[in-house]
Amino acid sequence: MDRRGIKSLIVFGDSTNGNPDLCYLVGSSLPRGGIYLKRINEDPVLVVSNIDLGNASQGRIKKLKTYTDYGYEKINAMYDREEARTRFYEKLIRDEGLRGPFVIGGKNELANSLLLVDSLRRRGFKIVGEKSPTIVEAARETKDGWEIERLREMGRKTARVVEKTLAFLRKGEARRGKIIHQGKPLTAGRVRRLIGRLLADSGIIAPEDTIFAPGKSSADPHNRGGDDDPVIPGEPIVYDIFPQEPDGYFFDCTRTYSYGRPNAKVKEMYDSVLEAQNLALDLIKEGASCKDVMLSVCNSFESRGYPTVRQLAMRKTVKGAAEARHRGFIHSLGHGVGLTIGERPYLSISSDYPLTKGMAVTVEPGLYDPRWGGVRLEDIVIVGSPSQNLTNLAKDMEL
Amino acid sequence: MDRRGIKSLIVFGDSTNGNPDLCYLVGSSLPRGGIYLKRINEDPVLVVSNIDLGNASQGRIKKLKTYTDYGYEKINAMYDREEARTRFYEKLIRDEGLRGPFVIGGKNELANSLLLVDSLRRRGFKIVGEKSPTIVEAARETKDGWEIERLREMGRKTARVVEKTLAFLRKGEARRGKIIHQGKPLTAGRVRRLIGRLLADSGIIAPEDTIFAPGKSSADPHNRGGDDDPVIPGEPIVYDIFPQEPDGYFFDCTRTYSYGRPNAKVKEMYDSVLEAQNLALDLIKEGASCKDVMLSVCNSFESRGYPTVRQLAMRKTVKGAAEARHRGFIHSLGHGVGLTIGERPYLSISSDYPLTKGMAVTVEPGLYDPRWGGVRLEDIVIVGSPSQNLTNLAKDMEL
Repeated sequence: MDRRGIKSLIVFGDSTNGNPDLCYLVGSSLPRGGIYLKRINEDPVLVVSNIDLGNASQGRIKKLKTYTDYGYEKINAMYDREEARTRFYEKLIRDEGLRGPFVIGGKNELANSLLLVDSLRRRGFKIVGEKSPTIVEAARETKDGWEIERLREMGRKTARVVEKTLAFLRKGEARRGKIIHQGKPLTAGRVRRLIGRLLADSGIIAPEDTIFAPGKSSADPHNRGGDDDPVIPGEPIVYDIFPQEPDGYFFDCTRTYSYGRPNAKVKEMYDSVLEAQNLALDLIKEGASCKDVMLSVCNSFESRGYPTVRQLAMRKTVKGAAEARHRGFIHSLGHGVGLTIGERPYLSISSDYPLTKGMAVTVEPGLYDPRWGGVRLEDIVIVGSPSQNLTNLAKDMEL
Repeated sequence: MDRRGIKSLIVFGDSTNGNPDLCYLVGSSLPRGGIYLKRINEDPVLVVSNIDLGNASQGRIKKLKTYTDYGYEKINAMYDREEARTRFYEKLIRDEGLRGPFVIGGKNELANSLLLVDSLRRRGFKIVGEKSPTIVEAARETKDGWEIERLREMGRKTARVVEKTLAFLRKGEARRGKIIHQGKPLTAGRVRRLIGRLLADSGIIAPEDTIFAPGKSSADPHNRGGDDDPVIPGEPIVYDIFPQEPDGYFFDCTRTYSYGRPNAKVKEMYDSVLEAQNLALDLIKEGASCKDVMLSVCNSFESRGYPTVRQLAMRKTVKGAAEARHRGFIHSLGHGVGLTIGERPYLSISSDYPLTKGMAVTVEPGLYDPRWGGVRLEDIVIVGSPSQNLTNLAKDMEL
């Protein structure tokens, strides 16, 4: 805070769920959210509703207060909602002796939050915006030891779910252009239901579902696979799983499979992706530039003749630029993982900053072709010297 | 928009997941989010990344564009992140002919979003904050027919999960002060794992987990029940389930059970909660004041001698005020449900607005006592004349 000239930090939210900054600072689940107040060089204060005191006491903030302690109900009864909110924040700021410049953060509805910021500014409080990474984002992007342990445990659970899925898949048999499993043609929906049960058995959830995309649907990196999509021998299946501890840490892992030999095009894509991933895994260490790792992967793909997003940005060739929207390496190489499934650092062409010790980042090169489908491989790595790969799962394509 | 003097609405987010306003406007899942632009009296435009075009086309916005269409990659390569973002929004606004006053919304990190707002303001764009309900919140709080059907379907699925849980619980037997189930003492953790599997089988998720709180833990409305908490004959068990369609609509349902006869105090609490809920269900219709419904329930509880949050706000009696933090009716009566599990309308003492047709609201009176545990019953109602209860589940306490 000092280096940035910020004297006080306020982070609020109506739940820790969906509000990673608040969740990180509080260290426990608050279903009704709360307000975190920190004056520079002082211990933070957390203000919660009466019924969340029990949850708050399981977190890492010692100084707990309730809305009632600051007369919330009385203020609320006297003024309309917006005026009451401004007055309540004014009281919090004065009672806790906070001084500006202030940062007010947390993941919140912007238009309504702006009303609060503007009315506090009118009352003389200096509230400033923050460049990314914000103070809390910077704290979140390098993981502490206990955070790495939670990610590692999520990695173990995720790998077990994938291995049990594989055991299920291997019971299927190719017959007349279909995969027959327990007497019925296998579909993406059947596999995804199994994955849901396996996640439940592990006590983890998939708030954004799971991608199990066979055949052509795998050519679109965000297509989760239609429930009725059949699994066809020789076609690629992208299995991308990104589960979360309830109100906690995520994991993210992708493998690409096929029943029997994939066709030559897909096999060549698979080999190229595996080579690119190994190249990136070698490059990822403390001090490496995020952008450079991404560009090395683009070079690797381009040298094999695949279009990449780098060409889209540079418009190096008109043909490449247009094509790279749908074919080739059409997304970034990776992103941070923690209390969200997409956060700093980003391994992209515009990420002109270095990797630092303790960052948790996905390494997920992929190649896509609307005619053949897609191939993607994804591990999570903790940056260090050397870095540690948290994804302990084989990379064989054929089931 | 017209009534509020707003000429343009911009809603953005880095995913539709966790960004209900964007999710609602877009009508499909966008894993990488997007920017929604609406000029008054014109069709909206949705700007997404290249790889989300497929997802976007499944939504309800006809005019789809990509970041690349506005030169995103080029701008990004020329300026630092914050400057590039401002210039990109400036280009969007000019290219689409948007004019102020502008509302910029979506659930986004506030401190960093404020930087965007401030720099657009410096360039002369008039960006204003919005009172709650914001334009999008107001659109979301009354449900369209298709939204009600999705809530109804979630209600059916949720009821089936609860009924299957009951079938499992009924196999337990009281022995020497414990419930023995399949040879082992029954714990909250075992039941919650079953619930997880049942949710998975139904293709729905519980992003904020499920409350299955037996005994004393039920006295804290937000205690989900410890995994090792034993189920004890005669003690109340609060079972509160709030599942979601993947990236879609929630449901919310609570029942309170006991193995065998509860003690007299708990039985009296149960009867009072059921009476209060029936009273509220009768009162909920178009035009009724949210606050009045809440106050009627407070009256009902107070007439039976229980402290309520109303006393906390009014400080009617010092004793009641202090007590109502932990004992009695210590929360509000209900909240809206839709793409979030807590949204307008709120049935609370400060909600001085009427219920309108199509609102979906929980009705969940509860009584808590640290000595005995808690009792809560919760249904979801669609406001109308008459209103429809979407929760089709019996309210017998004894298993």
